[in-house]
Amino acid sequence: MRAIVYDGEVRLVEVPTPRPGPGEALIRVLTAGICNTDIEITRGYMQFQGVLGHEFVGIVDEAENRQLLGKRVVGEINCVCHTCQFCQLEMPHHCLNRTVLGIQGRNGAFAEFLALPEENLHLAPSSARDDVAVFTEPVAAAFRILEQVVVTGEDRVVVLGDGKLGQLCAQVLWLQTKNLVCVGKHAWKLDLLARLGISTALDEDPVERGADIVVEATGAHDGLARALELVRPEGAIVLKTTTAHPTALELAGPVVNEVHIVGSRCGPFRPALDALAMGNVEVRPMITEVFPLSEGVAAMRRAQDPDVLKVLLHV
Amino acid sequence: MRAIVYDGEVRLVEVPTPRPGPGEALIRVLTAGICNTDIEITRGYMQFQGVLGHEFVGIVDEAENRQLLGKRVVGEINCVCHTCQFCQLEMPHHCLNRTVLGIQGRNGAFAEFLALPEENLHLAPSSARDDVAVFTEPVAAAFRILEQVVVTGEDRVVVLGDGKLGQLCAQVLWLQTKNLVCVGKHAWKLDLLARLGISTALDEDPVERGADIVVEATGAHDGLARALELVRPEGAIVLKTTTAHPTALELAGPVVNEVHIVGSRCGPFRPALDALAMGNVEVRPMITEVFPLSEGVAAMRRAQDPDVLKVLLHV
Repeated sequence: MRAIVYDGEVRLVEVPTPRPGPGEALIRVLTAGICNTDIEITRGYMQFQGVLGHEFVGIVDEAENRQLLGKRVVGEINCVCHTCQFCQLEMPHHCLNRTVLGIQGRNGAFAEFLALPEENLHLAPSSARDDVAVFTEPVAAAFRILEQVVVTGEDRVVVLGDGKLGQLCAQVLWLQTKNLVCVGKHAWKLDLLARLGISTALDEDPVERGADIVVEATGAHDGLARALELVRPEGAIVLKTTTAHPTALELAGPVVNEVHIVGSRCGPFRPALDALAMGNVEVRPMITEVFPLSEGVAAMRRAQDPDVLKVLLHV
Repeated sequence: MRAIVYDGEVRLVEVPTPRPGPGEALIRVLTAGICNTDIEITRGYMQFQGVLGHEFVGIVDEAENRQLLGKRVVGEINCVCHTCQFCQLEMPHHCLNRTVLGIQGRNGAFAEFLALPEENLHLAPSSARDDVAVFTEPVAAAFRILEQVVVTGEDRVVVLGDGKLGQLCAQVLWLQTKNLVCVGKHAWKLDLLARLGISTALDEDPVERGADIVVEATGAHDGLARALELVRPEGAIVLKTTTAHPTALELAGPVVNEVHIVGSRCGPFRPALDALAMGNVEVRPMITEVFPLSEGVAAMRRAQDPDVLKVLLHV
């Protein structure tokens, strides 16, 4: 089958179709999404080499559970052992022996087929088209925030970053509180949120300090310092940015202000699927361009342009 | 009266006796303790100039509440407005208009007299001698941790730092879990904890990773990086170190591992007084040397030697 791999460079190659292991399904990919993590991998993040991609919607082609056959599915990306201490503690995303689709030890979704454990699959809602369902994984990552910090209608929230993940975090948190502003660099990206009624500000605009919660989704190494300026004492900062670049930080401020900082990664698919099915999160305006898989190398390049939000691959 | 001030250098000077404001008491200082914060101030921290010192025990000399007169007291160091948003939210330690004894906008305890709001005072337990009661403020800072993270007997805790605050954090957390190790640079300091039955390790010793909670009380700018190595996914790091030195940090790790980091400052006096009164926390072995106030300049110098733990001033 054809696949987009990273092995020092991003290439379109012919690779063997994956053979599902015990309990795994083979999925024919319909649409896949390019995430900043895919781009970071091509800069050395996670030292991953193999088929890229972890955001997808596809059709089950082979499965032990025959009810899955032919079903349109999305899939959780962490494949876990069920026996290590973190699996036992019901923290499977932190499984010590995990593989992660297109990120760690497992070929990904920028291919004609992928293999995932059947337990990772969720039926895609019929009301969510492929170019909507493909956003389930990043929307779930935004919903992870609500598992980590309590957000009420009383809370004032700042989301730093108007990129793909920042946009989704802003939309998901806006379901909890209307007292939210998304701060970014690009008027046209912020405008997508403004059309939904969400307040926005450019980086250079003044933003009121003393926020209860700041979500740092800038993708930039200086985002945390900005978040620390904006959060109130005993407030929370949710860190979404994974960058290999080290950050220089003054720690006396957060100690004196007793700030909570929490790292945040993968999230729950169920509320993400519900939000997409009901249209509570609007993802289609974020799609800048769709490429066929055969042009995946160009798609990866295009996804790094500043005038782009989501780039999809149509397989 | 005589006082030890910092005004660019540490000096013994004659200053006017403080005049208590409305609701404030005048306290004759008996014993004061030198904290690393006092030393950091002489390096520019907080840009404070004035009478140093915030750890004390003394006798109430003047007070509106006549029942306080002649009583032996210790005192909370944050003097608050009761009207700002954080006071209203019952977060008085973060009062926007606060002064802090010997740290911010208010002369401190290395003097014959100090002034503090009467509401800040607590009676010193009769069973706690002056050289024990003077530890109330830093012991309270250690108890603050228990207000911020849940610590059960099941939790494995690592305390980084064998200095004054690290020792107290280790002792206080050891009341909650015996699965605790204090890691430090100095065998003789760690030995004080070992005599209480607390496990210890030198920096160069191997320490098992995957701790549920790591308390960073090294006073060093690289303590957080070490804490991040030792904490488990979704574990908590409590940051006690306030240093002006910026820290270089790799943030991808804590994001992927969804680590919680919380800054921690002043704590509750009530459990600290109980622990000192009942001898549940042992502080007298930490006293390296006692100086008269008249030798306070030498005492501040001595407190910076590596072979020292607590230095007290006898007024």
